[in-house]
Amino acid sequence: MTPATPAAQHIGASHIEAFIASAFQKVGISVPEAQSIAQLMARADVNGSEGHGIFRLPQYIRRIKGGAVNIKPDIRIEREAAAMALVNGDNGMGHLVMKFAAEKAIEKAKTAGVAWVGAKWSNHAGPASLYASMPVAHNMIGLYLAVGNANHLPAWGGLDMLLSTNPIAIALPGEDEAPVILDMATTVAAYGKVKTKAQRGEMMPEGWMMDRQGNPLTDPNRSNEGFLLPIGGYKGYGLALMFGLLAGTLNGAAMGRDVVDFNADDTTPTNTGHCIVAINIEAFQPVAEFKKSVDVLVRDLRKSERLPGVDRIHIPGEGSHAARTDRVKNGVPMPPSLMAALDALAAELGIAPLGK
Amino acid sequence: MTPATPAAQHIGASHIEAFIASAFQKVGISVPEAQSIAQLMARADVNGSEGHGIFRLPQYIRRIKGGAVNIKPDIRIEREAAAMALVNGDNGMGHLVMKFAAEKAIEKAKTAGVAWVGAKWSNHAGPASLYASMPVAHNMIGLYLAVGNANHLPAWGGLDMLLSTNPIAIALPGEDEAPVILDMATTVAAYGKVKTKAQRGEMMPEGWMMDRQGNPLTDPNRSNEGFLLPIGGYKGYGLALMFGLLAGTLNGAAMGRDVVDFNADDTTPTNTGHCIVAINIEAFQPVAEFKKSVDVLVRDLRKSERLPGVDRIHIPGEGSHAARTDRVKNGVPMPPSLMAALDALAAELGIAPLGK
Repeated sequence: MTPATPAAQHIGASHIEAFIASAFQKVGISVPEAQSIAQLMARADVNGSEGHGIFRLPQYIRRIKGGAVNIKPDIRIEREAAAMALVNGDNGMGHLVMKFAAEKAIEKAKTAGVAWVGAKWSNHAGPASLYASMPVAHNMIGLYLAVGNANHLPAWGGLDMLLSTNPIAIALPGEDEAPVILDMATTVAAYGKVKTKAQRGEMMPEGWMMDRQGNPLTDPNRSNEGFLLPIGGYKGYGLALMFGLLAGTLNGAAMGRDVVDFNADDTTPTNTGHCIVAINIEAFQPVAEFKKSVDVLVRDLRKSERLPGVDRIHIPGEGSHAARTDRVKNGVPMPPSLMAALDALAAELGIAPLGK
Repeated sequence: MTPATPAAQHIGASHIEAFIASAFQKVGISVPEAQSIAQLMARADVNGSEGHGIFRLPQYIRRIKGGAVNIKPDIRIEREAAAMALVNGDNGMGHLVMKFAAEKAIEKAKTAGVAWVGAKWSNHAGPASLYASMPVAHNMIGLYLAVGNANHLPAWGGLDMLLSTNPIAIALPGEDEAPVILDMATTVAAYGKVKTKAQRGEMMPEGWMMDRQGNPLTDPNRSNEGFLLPIGGYKGYGLALMFGLLAGTLNGAAMGRDVVDFNADDTTPTNTGHCIVAINIEAFQPVAEFKKSVDVLVRDLRKSERLPGVDRIHIPGEGSHAARTDRVKNGVPMPPSLMAALDALAAELGIAPLGK
């Protein structure tokens, strides 16, 4: 969660959703599809993933206008077996492709026990946790992998940026406890965090980035002189590589040298790859028992004795749960810079400004 | 790979395998099962995973003699659907349980496209890569997760060691390139590396362990005064937690407070949990195309421009491949301390010593 600045306006999720939907409709996306995307993007903001919510709207619209994204995609299953499907997203918005893929995975896991659905010719789809969480409402575990949309990571010891921050998200339900949701990049910091530091005029801690001589890079304004560092050194490099092979290469999607930097390019399709796995808990054990075991573990972790100076133990997904609880009630804090960008977008598209 | 000391004897894999098989037969395991375990343990040594090969034999025998492990297990499928199975290992040797599980996953993935097989009431099974690699021979991708057999990791910010080094392994085939195989603990160092440092009288680098005041712990002889650190801080904590929930909790196996420290205990069953996923490449795309894409990526990574002082870019699995190539020809280097331990074991069991 980014702390709200004093000047931040709070906007209700329904307003955010309506604004996003009207923007996508204005550039030619059908009403139901625009609403689907808007719902997922607003959900990202409500969940505290503000780097992946309405913040991305101007870029998404720019890429649609640039012809990089297909506004009338024929999202379809290209290959299928009892426990898998390969979805061709037809270069549609990633949110539509991955909603389709997640629903297919959930449907198949109901009978097969587990299902793995890959997608190619997709696009940036927002936060990984959105899709990993979808199976949870069906008493399933969700696991999501993706190839990131810009290469900022070299091989360990290398300089050529052939890998992205390829994220993993895993979500599963507790009983009385909130779902446990891990959503992480395989780099120490996601690239969005570097951009946020630059916007705020702050230095980065050592360990986020390295320059091409191997020295720590801490000035975010010099980020193009270096690269992101993987978690755990060669281990994070290995994870980024393997997740990319599973989410990209296996699906016939872009990986390595074929990845398009979608921040720098408004005209080229990205052929983004992702995959979503749905695991039907009931196939393994009674759902209620599993949820109880999750609660016991979460509570054992939370009540652990703590290191000096540590206020509390965090469980993955807790921050997002707290953001959701707050924002459903109080709205989403919108920094003035973002409101200005959205006002400009509204003027450009000829739609009503957000919150008016 | 541990570099061979000058005094290290080299022993052929077939001798290692025969010795291990005779040891297990001597404590009551059937001939075919003893041979299966021996084959997998010798394979670990040949692959350069010497911390998980014959090195573990005295401990395995000790735990069998202590009654902690069932020598006549009825390894069986307890639950099953098209793309999943839950294996009850009946407290048998982990190698037998996970070989059974991997074969089941491969069989199911042939028709379902993907299959996920979990195991409970298993035991330590050696290196994760052994099982992740099994689907590769069938033109499949393997993914393996496990709950480690001793808790050395607290929640991030905590002191109670409720988590283990829960590893992940992913293996997939190239065409002319060796299979890409990632096999890693979710901690910066596996606990075995700490023990090796102690044996060698070396200090650990900062970042491996922390003491209970939050200071770096670098003396491996003081390892019981602290705990392992996860890769990427809270991210590695999240991975260890989620992998444990998938490999342990979901299968009804031990996780959190229920994990038994099998290094300190020769009598209590561990109820170890693992899972193996087999992904049939052919379901997604022609196998030859996939393998070619893997080769292209591997070569792009390998020929990357390098950081100053870096001799070469490593691809996960390359070290293991080099060890295998060398050891199939020249045998496995066995340090004198290990030979002495195995001689003592041979005398105790009344079997012929290794290499004689």
